Order: sequence, then C-alpha cells, then structure tokens
Amino acid sequence: MAYDAAALASVTREQIEAGPQNIWRYAALLPTGQDPATRVTLDPGLTPLVSATALAAEVGLRAPLWVKDDSANPTHSFKDRVVSVALTAARELGFTRFACASTGNLANSVAAHAARAGVPSIVFIPGDLEQGKVITTAVYGGELVAIDGSYDDVNRLCGELVETDEFEDTAFVNVNVRPFYAEGSKTLGYEVAEQLGWRIPAQVVVPMASGELLTKIDKAFSELVEIGLVEAPEGGWTVFGAQSAGCNPIATALHNGTDQIIPVKPTGIAKSLNIGDPAAGSYAIEAVTRTGGWMDYADDDEIRDAIQLLARTTGVFAETAGGVTVAVLKKLVASGKLDPDKETVVYNTGEGLKTLDAVAGQVGPTHRIKPSLRGARDAGLLG
Amino acid sequence: MAYDAAALASVTREQIEAGPQNIWRYAALLPTGQDPATRVTLDPGLTPLVSATALAAEVGLRAPLWVKDDSANPTHSFKDRVVSVALTAARELGFTRFACASTGNLANSVAAHAARAGVPSIVFIPGDLEQGKVITTAVYGGELVAIDGSYDDVNRLCGELVETDEFEDTAFVNVNVRPFYAEGSKTLGYEVAEQLGWRIPAQVVVPMASGELLTKIDKAFSELVEIGLVEAPEGGWTVFGAQSAGCNPIATALHNGTDQIIPVKPTGIAKSLNIGDPAAGSYAIEAVTRTGGWMDYADDDEIRDAIQLLARTTGVFAETAGGVTVAVLKKLVASGKLDPDKETVVYNTGEGLKTLDAVAGQVGPTHRIKPSLRGARDAGLLG
Repeated sequence: MAYDAAALASVTREQIEAGPQNIWRYAALLPTGQDPATRVTLDPGLTPLVSATALAAEVGLRAPLWVKDDSANPTHSFKDRVVSVALTAARELGFTRFACASTGNLANSVAAHAARAGVPSIVFIPGDLEQGKVITTAVYGGELVAIDGSYDDVNRLCGELVETDEFEDTAFVNVNVRPFYAEGSKTLGYEVAEQLGWRIPAQVVVPMASGELLTKIDKAFSELVEIGLVEAPEGGWTVFGAQSAGCNPIATALHNGTDQIIPVKPTGIAKSLNIGDPAAGSYAIEAVTRTGGWMDYADDDEIRDAIQLLARTTGVFAETAGGVTVAVLKKLVASGKLDPDKETVVYNTGEGLKTLDAVAGQVGPTHRIKPSLRGARDAGLLG
Repeated sequence: MAYDAAALASVTREQIEAGPQNIWRYAALLPTGQDPATRVTLDPGLTPLVSATALAAEVGLRAPLWVKDDSANPTHSFKDRVVSVALTAARELGFTRFACASTGNLANSVAAHAARAGVPSIVFIPGDLEQGKVITTAVYGGELVAIDGSYDDVNRLCGELVETDEFEDTAFVNVNVRPFYAEGSKTLGYEVAEQLGWRIPAQVVVPMASGELLTKIDKAFSELVEIGLVEAPEGGWTVFGAQSAGCNPIATALHNGTDQIIPVKPTGIAKSLNIGDPAAGSYAIEAVTRTGGWMDYADDDEIRDAIQLLARTTGVFAETAGGVTVAVLKKLVASGKLDPDKETVVYNTGEGLKTLDAVAGQVGPTHRIKPSLRGARDAGLLG
C-alpha cells in the first residue's frame, strides 16, 4: 500500500493522457499495477461522461449536468475498477485463489477477472439475488456459493472463512485485500476530473452501499489538488450521497445529526446497495458534512421512475442503483440542498440489463399488431 | 454516399490514431459524420480485442487467437456502430423520426440513440423476442411495435410503411438509409487491423444474419490495403461465416455449391441471427469463396456450450450469436477448414445479459449453504 510520495508529486497530466485508455493510466496514483505485466485486469475505466441537458431541464438544474456511466465497464459495473486493483495486488502478494462476498456486481467481476487470468475463484452471494447477476457469475465456471441469508450474513461468513487454514491462499477482494480494492474506486474521481478538462465539478451525487465509493471519490479530488494536477474549484466541491428507502442507515444517521450508524435489515429493489451495516458510513457522513453536502433516499417507485427518466433523457439504461442516484438528485434539487446553478456529476454505477425485473412491469411494447399495413392502420400508426 | 476519393487516399495512420476513442476516428473512411457537430451517436467502437490463449488451446489453435468483443458498445452490440452512421446520415438528410425493423439489438440501439438525440423513434420487433431486448428498447420511451410474425415479416412490413405518406419523414436505419447503415460495419474491420498494430489477421470468423457484416469486414480490409494504410498479409486473408442450425440458408447454399439462397423459416435460440431471407447472403458467399474460407453452423446445444467455453476461458460473456461463432470456430478447426497455425480473430457481436435464458438452465450456484462455518464445512468448502 505504500506509494512513492515523491513519484506522486511528479506525475503530470501529459503522462496520464499518454497512458492506456483505462484505469491503468492512473497507475502512478494506485497502490499496485505499475508494471503492466503484473496486472490481473479486464482493463476497465474511461467510461463515458455523458452530457445530460434534457435530464437537467427535467429535474430543474440550470448548470451543466453529466452522467458518469460506469455500466460501460467490461462486466457492466464500477466493481471492475476495484477488482482489477485488488486482484493485481492479490497475485503480487502470492494468493492463488480469488474470492468475494457480493451483492452481485462484485461477483460478476471477480468471476470474470479470474476466468481471464486463469485463476480459480470462489464467490459468495446472498441466496435471493437477481437472476441476471447469478447467471453472469456462474457462466464463468468458478465456484459460486449461494448463502441462505442477507449480504451482511455473507460478509460475516467470509470474514470467518478468511481465518481458516483452507482459505489462507484465498484473496477475498473486499476482506483481506480490501485496502487495495477501496483505492480502485478513486479512479471514478480521477476520470471525471480529466474528462472535464482537468476540472473538479462543483457537485457530485454518489450512490452509497458501504459508503466507501463516496469517500474515495472525495479522496481522489483531494489528491488531484494536492499533487497539483487540478486546481480546486472556487468554493470547493460538494459531495451528496444517495441511498434507497429500503436501506438508508447512513442517510438516516446524517438526518439525525449523528455519525453513529444504526444497522438495518435491507429491503427493496436496489439490491446492489443493500448493505445494512455499512463499513464506511461514518466516513461518508464526514465527507458530506465537510464539503457542505447532504444525503437523501428514494423508495422503489421513485427508483423505477428515475431509471426511465434517465433512459428517456440520456439513452443510459441504469440498474436500480442508478435509479436511486437520479431519484435522489431530483429530490436534492427540489429541496434546495443541491444548487441548481452549479455544475453537477451523477454517478451511474451499473447496468439496467442486470435488474430488468425492476422495470419489467412498467415498460413494454406500445402497440401489438398483425404484420400488414391494415394492422398498422388499425393500430393508428398511419394517422 | 459519395466519398472524396482523394481525401481517402491521403488518410494517415497518425490522423486516425489522434482521433477520438470510438468509431469516429475513422470518419474519413465513412460516408457521413466528418463534422462532430452533425453526429447522432452514443460514440460506440474501439471495443476490446481480447487475447484468447486458453480458448485457442481448447479448440486446437496453435497460432494467436483474438476475440473482438463488441458487447462493450454502449447498448452492448455491434449495432451501435451501424446505427450511429445511419442516424447521422438520416438527420443530415432531414428525417425527423428514427425507426427500424429489428431482432432486438438494433431496436435497443435505435431507441437509445433517439433518446440521447432527443428525436422521436418507432421500432418494430417480432412478438417473440427475449424479454431483455424488449425492455431494453421500451425503457427509452419511444414507440415500440410488436408484430405477430417473424423478423422477415417485420422487415417486409417496414418496407411497405416506408412508402406511405405517414412515414415519409421517418428514417428506417435498415431500409431507406441502409447504405449508410451497412458502411458502419466496416469499422469492425478497421479496428481489428489497427488494434493488431495495423495488420490484417490471416483468418476471421464472423456471425451471419443478413450476411452484410461479413461482407463489410472483408471490404474494410480491402480498403485499408487500397489506401495504403496496411499491407495485405502474405497469402491474403480468409473469411469464415457462422450461422445457427436453426437458420442456415447462407451456409447451406455454400455447402450445396451455389450462391442461390433458399429462404428458411428460422428456429432456435440464436434469435439475433434469425434472418431467414438474408439480403447479403450471396455476397457473403462470394467473399468467403474468393478468400478461400468456409461456412458452418451450430445447433442450440453447441451454442450453449460455446457461450460457457468462451466465458470460462476469456471472461467474455457473449449472447447466443457469440456462442454461434465460437462453436463454428471449433468446428472449422476440427474439420481442417480453418488453419490452426494462422492468426485468427473471432467476432463476438453481442452481450450475454440479453440472452440469459440460453444458459439459465445450465449454470447456477455450485453450492447452497447456511451462513455459518458449519454450513461451509458441511458443503465441503473446508476440506
């Protein structure tokens, strides 16, 4: 985990811009993977930063709005970033099997990375995951263990397994190599700044599960300023956090004026955010409070509507977590917590194809006709 | 559709390499979109060319094998390429509504492009499509017309609608702006050559629906040689075509020693390839015959197995069309039609998440346990 601080200070924009078209262009700012030959990776990153003018208009923002679309990663979530960094470190540390506790996206990513690298994997998931995330893990051929319990149960068991002799050669990306994993999230901050022409946006809205993604995006912005790659925006940047109503322990603590998180039993459709006992919750509250931001949460109907709103206005089809973030953006504008005259970036961390059930009841064909001009005319398609 | 031939001849590798990280780096070789401001696009392209050493070993190839993974496009199929080119032309030509006849992937892409551009869309699909492809079109909010019939019925009806007054302002990407659409496929040839360091591979295996993708990849290679960007490989390149057993009219004609295609009624799980009356079939036969290649087809079980084989050995999860191509690669090696000592590229044109049903019965959790060390021990995970 030790960076070379001197090397950091000498990193230039030009070096980064000349790097590969993925997260490894920031290798100098990451704790591992400086040598391309050592990387265990699907080469995620440099996902699109989509201008969202029509969405801005619909939610009442007057300043530019951007969607950072991380569904474009190889296994279609931001987890590819953290897994690439964690498994690169894991192989360097001598681990010979890759593992994780997962709400689904992480499982997909670990299994795919292991398949690409030719390393055995064992992935632990809650028994009630969306079919899309189960099949997309199982298809890569590693071991896949479904556990009768919640994500928090899965996570606790993995914390016990990692202490056993049978698992001493196994790297759990979010347990025993977690510090590397967490650092991978910083690339979501670096990229946005670079894609804006080396500027930090005034406001960001970030979904929260453990809360770690939010803290690492904030950290990435701080690092860019510290090492002189970017100037801080006037008035600094402001970080906003988004949860679902079915799992809102971090937002609830903030609303109650405390940083003491009271764990909850998660419910609701935003399963990829359903961590009832969020490890980085208090750090997320610190970052949001320090930067003058806020947190809010959206219920299942608001999430479904927001998925459609985002798709209709930007062409980006998000999974439920993206619906959470867009729904919360809307609330933050309505409540005056988010400044409609400041440039804003919302993070979409996953792909709508993985959570089709969320909108399956809401969208479908607008017409059903016989294959003839008469059929088209009867359906009103010919005026 | 008129290119500037003189401009073409003066295109350099350096100009292309300095271009955007998407298909528009080849704008000088495309019939539209030279001015970035005119583009109707999700900026697809520059998808990964994945080294597939483990897959090569399993199918018996000794030379390098690559998977061109077009599931990495914005709506997760190669159709984003052709739609970006067709709709850019359509807007320049004054069309005010975007449409298509589709087996699913094209529908997704047209609806998403229209949403991003803020242009109305109307998409026509067969009534029996996979749920993933229906929802992923409907979610963007345009009109979506499900037709009681096959793709060929849908296509025929669109050919009739385009002649009506009510549709005179409507661009059907694969009907009245089809020449532009088809040219977009060339980028799948350009990119592979550039990603190989400006070399054309000795052999390519391409899935066939209408047959047009195959002919356009061949055309792209020819153009690159003609304008001096690439030298032809020694002995030229060889093009192979892949169909499913449920819809194999092109391969059957070739096997029968004719270029007369006898239309079929498609069946089987590879729905994105189910065009029973393939418009470019005879051209595909010409390209394959001229380059010394061959065609073959795979049945549903072979397709399912090949999806898993590809995922397990490369970390790429393909839709059924990708399973077709990998299954046919395997057959072509086994039958001696494809030279195992020559560098080969196989094209994966779509995303496994869109055709989950294909493998849903075959893969799943390998263990199901209680959330405790005892549960893990009982399942044999602790030795």
